Amino acid sequence: MASVVDRLNLKAAILCKDIVRMCTIAGSGHPSSGLSLVHMVTALMYNKMRYSPSDAWNNSADRLVLSEGHAVPVIYAAYADLEGVVGKSKAKSWKLSSKDLSSLRKLGSVLDGHPNPAEGMPFFDAATGSLGQGASVAAGLALAARTDGSDRIIYCFIGDGESREGQIWEAVDFIAERGLNNVVLIFNCNGQGQSDYVASQQSPKALAGKLAAAGLNAKIIDGHNIKGFLDTLKENMGKGKPPLAICAETIKGWGSSILTSGNWHGKPLPAADVETTMKDYDRIISKMKSKGIRVGNLQPGKPAKTTRRAEIKKVTLAKPSQILKADKAFRANGAIATRRAYGLALVALGRANKNVVGLDADVKNSTFAIYFHEKYPDRFFECRIAEQNMLSMAVGLSAAGKIPFVSSFGKFFSRAYDQIEMAAIGRANIKITGSHSGVTLGADGPSQMSLSDVAFFASMSTAHSGDGTPICVVLQPIDGVSAVKMTELMANHKGMCYMRTLRSDTPTMYKDNERFVIGGTKTVVKGKDIAIFGTAFMVHEAMKAAELLKADGIKASVVDAYSLPIKAGEVTRAARANKNRILTVEDNYGQAMGAAVAQIAAAEGGIKVSSLNVPKIPKSARDVGKLLKYLSLDAKSIAKKAKQMI
Amino acid sequence: MASVVDRLNLKAAILCKDIVRMCTIAGSGHPSSGLSLVHMVTALMYNKMRYSPSDAWNNSADRLVLSEGHAVPVIYAAYADLEGVVGKSKAKSWKLSSKDLSSLRKLGSVLDGHPNPAEGMPFFDAATGSLGQGASVAAGLALAARTDGSDRIIYCFIGDGESREGQIWEAVDFIAERGLNNVVLIFNCNGQGQSDYVASQQSPKALAGKLAAAGLNAKIIDGHNIKGFLDTLKENMGKGKPPLAICAETIKGWGSSILTSGNWHGKPLPAADVETTMKDYDRIISKMKSKGIRVGNLQPGKPAKTTRRAEIKKVTLAKPSQILKADKAFRANGAIATRRAYGLALVALGRANKNVVGLDADVKNSTFAIYFHEKYPDRFFECRIAEQNMLSMAVGLSAAGKIPFVSSFGKFFSRAYDQIEMAAIGRANIKITGSHSGVTLGADGPSQMSLSDVAFFASMSTAHSGDGTPICVVLQPIDGVSAVKMTELMANHKGMCYMRTLRSDTPTMYKDNERFVIGGTKTVVKGKDIAIFGTAFMVHEAMKAAELLKADGIKASVVDAYSLPIKAGEVTRAARANKNRILTVEDNYGQAMGAAVAQIAAAEGGIKVSSLNVPKIPKSARDVGKLLKYLSLDAKSIAKKAKQMI
Repeated sequence: MASVVDRLNLKAAILCKDIVRMCTIAGSGHPSSGLSLVHMVTALMYNKMRYSPSDAWNNSADRLVLSEGHAVPVIYAAYADLEGVVGKSKAKSWKLSSKDLSSLRKLGSVLDGHPNPAEGMPFFDAATGSLGQGASVAAGLALAARTDGSDRIIYCFIGDGESREGQIWEAVDFIAERGLNNVVLIFNCNGQGQSDYVASQQSPKALAGKLAAAGLNAKIIDGHNIKGFLDTLKENMGKGKPPLAICAETIKGWGSSILTSGNWHGKPLPAADVETTMKDYDRIISKMKSKGIRVGNLQPGKPAKTTRRAEIKKVTLAKPSQILKADKAFRANGAIATRRAYGLALVALGRANKNVVGLDADVKNSTFAIYFHEKYPDRFFECRIAEQNMLSMAVGLSAAGKIPFVSSFGKFFSRAYDQIEMAAIGRANIKITGSHSGVTLGADGPSQMSLSDVAFFASMSTAHSGDGTPICVVLQPIDGVSAVKMTELMANHKGMCYMRTLRSDTPTMYKDNERFVIGGTKTVVKGKDIAIFGTAFMVHEAMKAAELLKADGIKASVVDAYSLPIKAGEVTRAARANKNRILTVEDNYGQAMGAAVAQIAAAEGGIKVSSLNVPKIPKSARDVGKLLKYLSLDAKSIAKKAKQMI
Repeated sequence: MASVVDRLNLKAAILCKDIVRMCTIAGSGHPSSGLSLVHMVTALMYNKMRYSPSDAWNNSADRLVLSEGHAVPVIYAAYADLEGVVGKSKAKSWKLSSKDLSSLRKLGSVLDGHPNPAEGMPFFDAATGSLGQGASVAAGLALAARTDGSDRIIYCFIGDGESREGQIWEAVDFIAERGLNNVVLIFNCNGQGQSDYVASQQSPKALAGKLAAAGLNAKIIDGHNIKGFLDTLKENMGKGKPPLAICAETIKGWGSSILTSGNWHGKPLPAADVETTMKDYDRIISKMKSKGIRVGNLQPGKPAKTTRRAEIKKVTLAKPSQILKADKAFRANGAIATRRAYGLALVALGRANKNVVGLDADVKNSTFAIYFHEKYPDRFFECRIAEQNMLSMAVGLSAAGKIPFVSSFGKFFSRAYDQIEMAAIGRANIKITGSHSGVTLGADGPSQMSLSDVAFFASMSTAHSGDGTPICVVLQPIDGVSAVKMTELMANHKGMCYMRTLRSDTPTMYKDNERFVIGGTKTVVKGKDIAIFGTAFMVHEAMKAAELLKADGIKASVVDAYSLPIKAGEVTRAARANKNRILTVEDNYGQAMGAAVAQIAAAEGGIKVSSLNVPKIPKSARDVGKLLKYLSLDAKSIAKKAKQMI
């Protein structure tokens, strides 16, 4: 009678043939990386993991994160063989079969070049493929499991070359700090990168040394020895044990005489070489079979229970004035920084929806996420100064049904733009709030100012997720009321949102019953000669400019362009009411709101648009007024520009 | 007779008063962080470092990188006391004095809130303040020194909380791999972050363990013990020794009874509390003086020699066809991928200018930086899969007079947008080439596609560096000839450039004598009914569309909009010649070239602009044509849109 291990070994050898073939048929892909993982993947997917291939949406099942996303053919091969379900939703799902493997990387296929749950591969929780992000996603899933009291385990495969990415070590620190022993990191040490051998800094021994120094339980194993792998898992996992990290020595292109000679990274076998490799595997398979080994019915473990990700339910917060009155200064004079209003709104959200979680990177007393931290410490995760890990953890949390609100300085999110784009590709439902936006933080200087953030997020807002909703929504409140309303809006919008908040106090502009919608604008001063479109702090400066213009007999409208993408009708309506003249004003670099407005105007025709942006690299200034003048963004400069247009 | 150490201690105590006072006068700043560094900074700047405060531009002098930029008041205090020179160039420099410290964070001051050489503080090599980047800058400076045969030492201070940033560990790996013992990393372990105590993962012991595991010589010392600090440096530096990393236990707010109680991160002392703190320091000072200690004439060491950073000299490469003929396929049919042409041009550049250096992150065989690597191995730095470290190292290299050409996939540079913005703030002269741009890499899917890159870099291109040149120039070659010409253009342009290259071959479009300038465009098809502005691969698709339109009797012009910022005249001229109709076509998200064109058109008036961009998140496709159709970017879709406009 063959042991389970023997049977798993046989299955692994059989899967190798699928891995090689599907890449050759596709004409691209990474068979050699997949082959290096084949034994460990087989051990997990056919045995160790507690999940049901027929129900990929069970929020209590174990999960697998493939950080080195290019190795995905090994997963596809196993999942197809197990008849795992695929599709964009449970209602519209179907069972994958091995013949589907020939559709790898085809336009109509769910088998994308790299893992992406959003293209119909629900076995995965996040889009991966840009390297170094999986351990953080796994940590996010593990945090969610811990918060939910779930015993699910998150396995994560990381490439050795990939582990040079600093984000991996941010994740390791977080896992160690929180003692997240429901994550198992498995480093695939096949020794080969794309253009070179992996550095000795990423050898199994070096990695194990670093992991141990970071406080994980680091083990070096043979990644093709299924028994050793399963034993290591069994012996080192469980209550009270430190998080386990495995450095698995593997062979890139395992079992194929051709793929193990020379550098085959990212290259499929030419069709002519497939037969030789099939024979390699057939020999291995025959040898096992000759010993009486048969695969039989291999099945993964059973999940403890079946639960579903929380649905995103509409939340209605109390009136903004009710929420904001917790702030003494607001009560006194109605002025409050939008960042502080956001903090208060976040607490209200936390009360309204227990799935709301907060993350911040050691600036919670500046972003005011600290209010949430104080009220809901169990749902707040201090991520320390490691923005990349924070973002990808949020992706993991959202995949488990949480609604993560991630806070930092707007500037510091540029540290994680790759992670943010990957979140968008996976259609993660995360909410990003960048404080101290624009130049009005003044004295700290440009290293703390978010200046190209609007262009970056707005760029994503020009495309949609597939279902018509923009990939990303940009929101810019100008007062406490709109900050509360937009925080609520973010919670109710399914998909990525980016909200910019301000360091300094601004007066209350809106009433409690004001409505804010994606794509909308608000006319805060009604004129007829020119419409000044402003964002955030610049709306207030534009209002001063409108006052100055009055003295010259010019009646300027001021429009709060609080949302991107902006609806074309909002622009054309304002233009028509203001002699087809629009001046846009922002305290960030260009390609932002002004460009979006100009594009609508130029497509429509007959509307003139001029724009003021931050025209040069700012510097420190104690006085915000002086800095705005230095950048030609003060009320006088705005008024001057408006006059030039008339 | 007082020892040098006693005298340094006395000087340090005196500097504390300046640190505290300047922040109180400024009304903001980080006195407590500066105070935790005061003894080590004093030991370096008044003794150990070999540099001349009167010549900050000596390329052979030791350097100090302040990664935790917010601690900068301690440097300003010492540098002013030493009458260090400041100013934007040697020719226009002057000596700082202690009375200048009261201008900290003022608009007109060289004493910006965070270090920035570009604002007139030449003691620094790079803008810092967004955390985690200094060790990489130091590694870049050290690489340059080694390449130049210089014995200069680079000291780098890193915050303990800051060392949670993964980039620090990318830098540590690089320093270990290259054995860069001309860098000394000094971790300032004061135990306090902004919003919390530093995690135990960043304790001196934990850091030392990690550093040792990475292969550095890690030492834990008392950061306020000048003798111990200097002895540690003396004993552990020198030929053949491993790179040294010091974990210095320090006290945040050292010496001030007020600043050492509670959390004073980032807070200046209120004016009312200054006197108490001055008394604290006066007591310390008096005690030392009572022992007969006097500061006397403390001076730093002498640099071995005086050299200057290499000037950027104009390079003229051979004719593109000469350079490209090294490629067999090009010789055969004139088709070549722009990424490959870039690789060949880079080799030619390397021959023309020995200061050109190359960096790549394990994709050199995809970006074709491998050609440079093969020809000039001593000037090529394989950075492994760690893009953030690569970018900040390039900043360090450029500060030492090198011209770094940094190559990776366009997508993967989004990993380093924070570092790129910091490079721009410091006006670093770096050249970034992103390959596999847009969607035409097809099969690998969106995780490998650069889609918001144009918006991000173009955003910076809308602002200038202070001297009128754009912060960043975006270049998009469409064939081998323009790729060579633009590589040359990048080398000759002082400042940051971003060039996008393509995966797939494109036919030769330009003659050798074609001129390309920043802001320019090229009309590649001359029509009269509509101008189709395209970039990169889409220019070729637009040409096909123009052919389709011919059949309908429509004569479309095709304009290669190869450069951002784009000159207004290029847009208006093309519009006037084509019935004021422009259609823009790009295979990236919006807020990019099309938005820039629309802004010019809307400012001018009377020009209609419509745009095609990637309208939704792409997915894998084996066939590029099918993917373009899926995204409504194929020739047919372009022609259809053009017809709608007419």
